Amino acid sequence: MAPQSWQSLSASKRSSNLEKIPKEWRLPASKLDKVSADANFGVLEVPRSCGILTAEEITITEENDATDLLEKMAKGELKSVDVTRALCKRAAIAQQLVNCLTEIFFEEALERAKTVDEYFEREGKVMGPLHGLPISLKDSFNVKGQQATIGYVQYLHNDPATSNSTLVDIMLSLGAVPYVKTNLPQTMMTADSENNVFGRTLNPHKLSLTAGGSTGGEGALIAMRGSLMGIGTDIAGSVRIPALCDGIFGFKPCSGRIPFGGKVPPGRLGAPTSIFPTIGPEAHSIRDMELWLKSIIDTDPWVLDEGTLAVPWREVSPPNRPLRLGLLLEDPSRPLHPSIMRSMTTATEKLKEAGHAIVPLSNIPDLWAAAALAWKFFLLDPTKKPLSILAAADEPLVLSMTTLVFPELKGYAPSLEALFEMNIERRKIMKAFHDMMTKNELDAFVMPAYQATAVPHDQYGVPIYTVLPNLIDYPAASIPYLKANQEADMAYLRSDVKYEPPYVPEEVEDAPCGFQVVGRPMRDEELMETIKVIWSVLGV
Amino acid sequence: MAPQSWQSLSASKRSSNLEKIPKEWRLPASKLDKVSADANFGVLEVPRSCGILTAEEITITEENDATDLLEKMAKGELKSVDVTRALCKRAAIAQQLVNCLTEIFFEEALERAKTVDEYFEREGKVMGPLHGLPISLKDSFNVKGQQATIGYVQYLHNDPATSNSTLVDIMLSLGAVPYVKTNLPQTMMTADSENNVFGRTLNPHKLSLTAGGSTGGEGALIAMRGSLMGIGTDIAGSVRIPALCDGIFGFKPCSGRIPFGGKVPPGRLGAPTSIFPTIGPEAHSIRDMELWLKSIIDTDPWVLDEGTLAVPWREVSPPNRPLRLGLLLEDPSRPLHPSIMRSMTTATEKLKEAGHAIVPLSNIPDLWAAAALAWKFFLLDPTKKPLSILAAADEPLVLSMTTLVFPELKGYAPSLEALFEMNIERRKIMKAFHDMMTKNELDAFVMPAYQATAVPHDQYGVPIYTVLPNLIDYPAASIPYLKANQEADMAYLRSDVKYEPPYVPEEVEDAPCGFQVVGRPMRDEELMETIKVIWSVLGV
Repeated sequence: MAPQSWQSLSASKRSSNLEKIPKEWRLPASKLDKVSADANFGVLEVPRSCGILTAEEITITEENDATDLLEKMAKGELKSVDVTRALCKRAAIAQQLVNCLTEIFFEEALERAKTVDEYFEREGKVMGPLHGLPISLKDSFNVKGQQATIGYVQYLHNDPATSNSTLVDIMLSLGAVPYVKTNLPQTMMTADSENNVFGRTLNPHKLSLTAGGSTGGEGALIAMRGSLMGIGTDIAGSVRIPALCDGIFGFKPCSGRIPFGGKVPPGRLGAPTSIFPTIGPEAHSIRDMELWLKSIIDTDPWVLDEGTLAVPWREVSPPNRPLRLGLLLEDPSRPLHPSIMRSMTTATEKLKEAGHAIVPLSNIPDLWAAAALAWKFFLLDPTKKPLSILAAADEPLVLSMTTLVFPELKGYAPSLEALFEMNIERRKIMKAFHDMMTKNELDAFVMPAYQATAVPHDQYGVPIYTVLPNLIDYPAASIPYLKANQEADMAYLRSDVKYEPPYVPEEVEDAPCGFQVVGRPMRDEELMETIKVIWSVLGV
Repeated sequence: MAPQSWQSLSASKRSSNLEKIPKEWRLPASKLDKVSADANFGVLEVPRSCGILTAEEITITEENDATDLLEKMAKGELKSVDVTRALCKRAAIAQQLVNCLTEIFFEEALERAKTVDEYFEREGKVMGPLHGLPISLKDSFNVKGQQATIGYVQYLHNDPATSNSTLVDIMLSLGAVPYVKTNLPQTMMTADSENNVFGRTLNPHKLSLTAGGSTGGEGALIAMRGSLMGIGTDIAGSVRIPALCDGIFGFKPCSGRIPFGGKVPPGRLGAPTSIFPTIGPEAHSIRDMELWLKSIIDTDPWVLDEGTLAVPWREVSPPNRPLRLGLLLEDPSRPLHPSIMRSMTTATEKLKEAGHAIVPLSNIPDLWAAAALAWKFFLLDPTKKPLSILAAADEPLVLSMTTLVFPELKGYAPSLEALFEMNIERRKIMKAFHDMMTKNELDAFVMPAYQATAVPHDQYGVPIYTVLPNLIDYPAASIPYLKANQEADMAYLRSDVKYEPPYVPEEVEDAPCGFQVVGRPMRDEELMETIKVIWSVLGV
């Protein structure tokens, strides 16, 4: 018997996925027939209008953030089973519209929610600070009984996981309810969440735009409010890029603070890199992200995971003084599109008006060169394991894999000798940012998350802005602010720069804008307070 | 003109060093004529008996630890200038007997002490928690105006430092008084503090024994009470080995906690290693080491140094319950000499009697293999820079360089490919120790610092016991306990093991014994409390 083609393997995975969506949660053909990766419209309001959710389910999913829901469940005003059903239904709707899920386990989740509710009934208290909350997870996390293919056709041959990722065990111990895993790019290293197993995740704000990556399934699902708390990983922007593209918040903590044990890696283990992947939340509110981070770190996760830094979460007070924020507006290699320029300019003006100091930064290291350096670390494996996993299943590269290219790395052959120089180069960049933070006495600095909003599929290219905080291991948050608006953005159009990818205002009209706020190393707690202050000025 | 030979360069450095010792602090020939690296006697009591120190200077240096002196200076009961003069004199005596110093700057120190005293007089308060305290430093620290040759003949051509190491700046800001730098081994990678510039440091307990290394000048100086607080570095045991050999305390914190900026490296920067050097104190009391660590970390050193982890010193309470201590008694490759076996057995028996739990550990990873792995990381540089620095001055290897050899590393050629496997191997060892600590709910574990006491010069060999905590980045302390005593040790002599180096009881009679206590990662604070409890049982 000939081995199954990758197409047939993937088709059968997708069809078994569809079967996990109950018939009564399926959208009618009329709602779906125009849905495509070319469609120039958004689908954010479909869950509310499609008639599948009850009024109560609409209220649960639209009028609460995760913190609200947790408070109501802790008071007994809401049951986890009702919250879980509402989010499962909404996730099912999202899946049909934007293809954001990889593993669907609604039944197990509803069982788990029942157990959590029974605990509350029996013990008169919550299981923990995440009691009853459905939490969605990037596909690379292991959840017992579910596959974790991370979009590799070859990994469709793998059995379902027989143990949880450390973080999943911790979240379960705190009362959380896992219910779906979410889509990501082939090899996890592009900003378009497309792979040959699950296909492409679309941006719910406008289907023709990328949802971002690599935690792009989360970005799209959360934007649809099919999740209020999603967990991703980030080594070059993978939490923050989807946050920008899908108009939500994202937070990349410093490496080592959240346990990374028991995940499925996209490549080879043991790389002698200086850049480590981190785990962080995507959410609709800053307080949700803080609640999640604090809850995880308060469990002493280093007791379970030898790779986690034993550094407790520190309670820090809100700064009772004006902030001092650096402003890194743009790297010449990637000029800001007008909509992002308007977002950042408006934000910093408002912050100034509110009395905060905005300190324009100069003599910043070349961010393009810094990103190329990061990619040299990402490409250290002489065996190119990700490509060999693709080859094993005879699956082709997706298009976005060919757009994330640094011309200067053509023919790059990693070497031990070069690694010494790379480490020294990285250290110089770290020192430059360290000295800049110290000299200017900054709480944080504001910089782009990307030069543009979400762009049409497969145009994203290299994420020079998000990879910087990974390279220097600073905590960073992605903050949504304003939306692309051709009329308003026009004032920020420049004729003397080359926009890359091209700026086509009608393509991105209404796409979410935003930027990053980057804190000091190991000061995740302070950065959280800083972005709360910023949001108190900008938020609506 | 022919270039100067290395012999002549070194001779002129040594002679200019001698000139820095005032005539009236020089020992008479009668006290020195038997001093040699073969001499089978100790010199610990010479400072007291030689007539150079006044009665008050003897009291200052012998009846106080650093904390005592700091308290007295803070109360105005002692002046820094008197403390400094006493320690300078005693360091001068030590230098003549055991050759422990590299740079001598008594005059600058006395000037500095005067400034510190004037500050106290003028301001009515101390400059900081190290107010007025003379602190000795390993030669690899930069002190403005002093050379930092680290024992390389080639570096005798270097100008005096024009800036301080970050840590030196911090200590100065806290009121400390640097007065000497101390000897270390060629390349800083052996346990015998000998190099072709300064020669060999002898063990003040018995001159024919090694003083240990690489922070061996400190070990000898502190044992002589020519310093009560000495700062060294440790990547394989360099603080803890001299502590054991010279009968004092040593503490290796976790990497990244103490600022490493602005030091002179013995080899090439940028190595893609997973093992990082740390800085730690050698001292006569645990509270001195804690005071130093806490004082440094309390200054937020990460603001000055981009390589320091922004992790504050945590105040932790003494455990108000019996300790749970693992016991890793011995690796089969390096059986414990009878004196160390007696020290560890007696200590753990006493701890048990005091109600603490001693948990014998089994299934420990092979410590020899773990040490060989660490050395593979230490030898990553394809250019072998330390050897090229030696070659540049045409200076020969010292003998101990040829004794620190892993036969399995013969012909080792580091490669990028191998680095992946090395990192995975290291991670396995980390996981084994992590699981062992967690499963047994240990506060810490007790293990040898070395299989023997200080041994005759150039016999030390590979430090498999001390390098383990560096490899896995656990904090570790070296605790002095008991002394070699042929009569008492005989009960621990085994005929079925091969002692390496050979056990010759009469050679090591009276040499200090001791062991390590290894805490949990990033739990330097808890380890400090643990060793206080241990010392409350064992201390005299």
